[in-house]
Amino acid sequence: MGQLAICPGSFDPVTYGHLDIIERGSRIFDHVIVAVFTNQSKSSLFSDQEKISLLEESTAHLGNVSVDTSKGLLIDYARKHQADTILRGLRAVSDFEYELQITSMNRKLDDTIETLFMMTNNRYSFLSSSIVKEVAKYQGEVSDLVPQSVEKALKEKYQ
Amino acid sequence: MGQLAICPGSFDPVTYGHLDIIERGSRIFDHVIVAVFTNQSKSSLFSDQEKISLLEESTAHLGNVSVDTSKGLLIDYARKHQADTILRGLRAVSDFEYELQITSMNRKLDDTIETLFMMTNNRYSFLSSSIVKEVAKYQGEVSDLVPQSVEKALKEKYQ
Amino acid sequence: MGQLAICPGSFDPVTYGHLDIIERGSRIFDHVIVAVFTNQSKSSLFSDQEKISLLEESTAHLGNVSVDTSKGLLIDYARKHQADTILRGLRAVSDFEYELQITSMNRKLDDTIETLFMMTNNRYSFLSSSIVKEVAKYQGEVSDLVPQSVEKALKEKYQ
Amino acid sequence: MGQLAICPGSFDPVTYGHLDIIERGSRIFDHVIVAVFTNQSKSSLFSDQEKISLLEESTAHLGNVSVDTSKGLLIDYARKHQADTILRGLRAVSDFEYELQITSMNRKLDDTIETLFMMTNNRYSFLSSSIVKEVAKYQGEVSDLVPQSVEKALKEKYQ
Amino acid sequence: MGQLAICPGSFDPVTYGHLDIIERGSRIFDHVIVAVFTNQSKSSLFSDQEKISLLEESTAHLGNVSVDTSKGLLIDYARKHQADTILRGLRAVSDFEYELQITSMNRKLDDTIETLFMMTNNRYSFLSSSIVKEVAKYQGEVSDLVPQSVEKALKEKYQ
Amino acid sequence: MGQLAICPGSFDPVTYGHLDIIERGSRIFDHVIVAVFTNQSKSSLFSDQEKISLLEESTAHLGNVSVDTSKGLLIDYARKHQADTILRGLRAVSDFEYELQITSMNRKLDDTIETLFMMTNNRYSFLSSSIVKEVAKYQGEVSDLVPQSVEKALKEKYQ
Repeated sequence: MGQLAICPGSFDPVTYGHLDIIERGSRIFDHVIVAVFTNQSKSSLFSDQEKISLLEESTAHLGNVSVDTSKGLLIDYARKHQADTILRGLRAVSDFEYELQITSMNRKLDDTIETLFMMTNNRYSFLSSSIVKEVAKYQGEVSDLVPQSVEKALKEKYQ
Repeated sequence: MGQLAICPGSFDPVTYGHLDIIERGSRIFDHVIVAVFTNQSKSSLFSDQEKISLLEESTAHLGNVSVDTSKGLLIDYARKHQADTILRGLRAVSDFEYELQITSMNRKLDDTIETLFMMTNNRYSFLSSSIVKEVAKYQGEVSDLVPQSVEKALKEKYQ
Repeated sequence: MGQLAICPGSFDPVTYGHLDIIERGSRIFDHVIVAVFTNQSKSSLFSDQEKISLLEESTAHLGNVSVDTSKGLLIDYARKHQADTILRGLRAVSDFEYELQITSMNRKLDDTIETLFMMTNNRYSFLSSSIVKEVAKYQGEVSDLVPQSVEKALKEKYQ
Repeated sequence: MGQLAICPGSFDPVTYGHLDIIERGSRIFDHVIVAVFTNQSKSSLFSDQEKISLLEESTAHLGNVSVDTSKGLLIDYARKHQADTILRGLRAVSDFEYELQITSMNRKLDDTIETLFMMTNNRYSFLSSSIVKEVAKYQGEVSDLVPQSVEKALKEKYQ
Repeated sequence: MGQLAICPGSFDPVTYGHLDIIERGSRIFDHVIVAVFTNQSKSSLFSDQEKISLLEESTAHLGNVSVDTSKGLLIDYARKHQADTILRGLRAVSDFEYELQITSMNRKLDDTIETLFMMTNNRYSFLSSSIVKEVAKYQGEVSDLVPQSVEKALKEKYQ
Repeated sequence: MGQLAICPGSFDPVTYGHLDIIERGSRIFDHVIVAVFTNQSKSSLFSDQEKISLLEESTAHLGNVSVDTSKGLLIDYARKHQADTILRGLRAVSDFEYELQITSMNRKLDDTIETLFMMTNNRYSFLSSSIVKEVAKYQGEVSDLVPQSVEKALKEKYQ
């Protein structure tokens, strides 16, 4: 199968839930580009550059994974990089409906690029960047939820 | 990516919804095995042999797709054929919860075999073998929903 | 708007939830036909004739409602009676997905016949023929859930 | 049936998904008022006056459809116009729960005004004003999703 | 069972839906603390002090209910008060997924504190602080939805 | 809180998912009765007596848990045993809707008996008696999913 998969997200910040999908993707695809897409209508805790650093550190052990950022449409990014596949994780019913909407739109824009989904490991099914930030903000324990570098970065933001 | 994907189902009978997933899968994977698993606690309209014939006819134009049947556990079948991937379609929320359950169990049984999902084309999101049979039973029009050979087979069953 | 709406169901037996939809429908449409469609692959507690009698008694106060039964496809029935509209109640998410499937199929078969939905009154959102039968079977109290004639008929069945 | 239906929404901007509901509604009801209700706690891309112009242009071919705007409660608007019916489209499970909440509240406020739902055509089940804006913002192709006048208006906003 | 349950929420403002859960909780637990947690990233209509006053007035008839506010993590609050149980209401599928996420996180943070759920009374299943505020803002009738003191407070805010 | 909780189910057979709820319940309530209710319209793999033996063996370490069986309505059983509370686990959205229906009906039958829910541990969120039987039937590994005595009993049934 596809040589190249794009794994898009806002990664504000990357969690073990994201890394579960990225690692499993890296075992299936020849190459995975983790692409940071920042929703400009929501405020982010981390800058694009910080997000990229944290992702690079967290995926350094995966030889076929690279990290990038983009400001345009996902489908344009995928086309530009000649990716055949977009890879996304699914945790819950609310994810499913949102992803179904996005995927249908992307297929409308370019039906040669396929979106594939993996079910998030049960262990991380409750995990999101938002809930990690909420816990970290009040000095709760997040060491089981994010890599050490992310934990450190969260502490710096919220101290 | 994976060389070999298993596309399992009961296919009683195959519809254009199934074929949408199989064709898109065949463009991504080196080889796709469509595997008929018959739920022995439900009664089938078509025999395993009939299901296979209809599937073979419907996928004859896809050079890298083969059709098979099995009576055991999917995960054992995948292991026996050294498949790295199971490919499934998702139509609706109720599918999602069922597939999440099956996938979690399969990962428990063997976490080296990955399950990947594709969203069914909107055009077929309402389509199921059950609803096709219900319509065919009352001589309703099913030519937009199943290949011609299946339409003919349904007519023979219900005449 | 439509002159004639079909309100289909299996009505095994009719409950106050069904009657809520039928009464509200009768205030909107010139005429409502309540049509008993019996799923032949499930066993029914009441015969078609019993279902019709209970429905007729329960809707006797509604001058523009009649009761009928059919063995074919709903869409053929609607066409034969020149109905412009099918009327259905929605209680829960699981209803929604099922109804979306059926409606999509019906539109495929004939897109001149429109299906309209009403949300079931909260008071009856938990109510179904199945749960009423389960309660009645063990001599539980169902007088708030079904009309008196249905309560009596259930007692006769389960005594 | 009802003579007059209100079809409310924020229409920021109108899409082919909205128009599908409006057109089907106009075939059932004597008259349909498309009523722009702008959620004042969210920011809109288009002004009320722009929304009305785009709606008027898009529904000009429908003789029994008029366009209006209101700042109050939907139920007060319906009462003032002596509408018997509110007409809404349903696309997905998340829609369903939101609509169930609003409808229950509206029935509490005035139970003589009935809300009727249509399932959105599968072809548009993924379509929302938000996703159209997201695509248009990055110069993606939206000509299959909105009327030409809306496409032009989006281009002006985002150039 | 537990002696002490925490009933957390943003209560902006308290509704009969919240009070249904609080009253039923007070019949089961020795003591219930209603704890106001204000989401600092959303703007509130009422101040913490106003929320507390309205809650105290609304629960004055319940001898074993007290009202408090906190700015930290719920789980820290529960620990500090040696509560064994967190009590939450469930209205709808969207609630369920959100609560499942929060509960999983809380169990991760401290698995000795149990979260218990009650289904909201059908009569209030559509009710939320947001929808009450929306109605009150436009001078709609809310006397069936909130206690008199809350109705009065809403009128003062929106006059 | 309640002294006595009823934990009902069909337990065909008991799994670690059930035991997670029973054990957590036994830490909260003075006494828990695990009550086997066998749905007479579905066929069971295990007899009531076998189910009770497996439950008794699996809960022998919990001093305040007893096991029983009943053929009537749950609410009558709860009343007869003067239980104040019914305890149920929630795994998924489909559970939620089913439980909401049953709970609403039970409250209608007797609103002095409260139903409380716990979210099933993520680790077991995919687990059901049905899926365990499906795996065991084909000699799959179930030792992580059910106690040893149940594993043995399944082997005997399916050998």
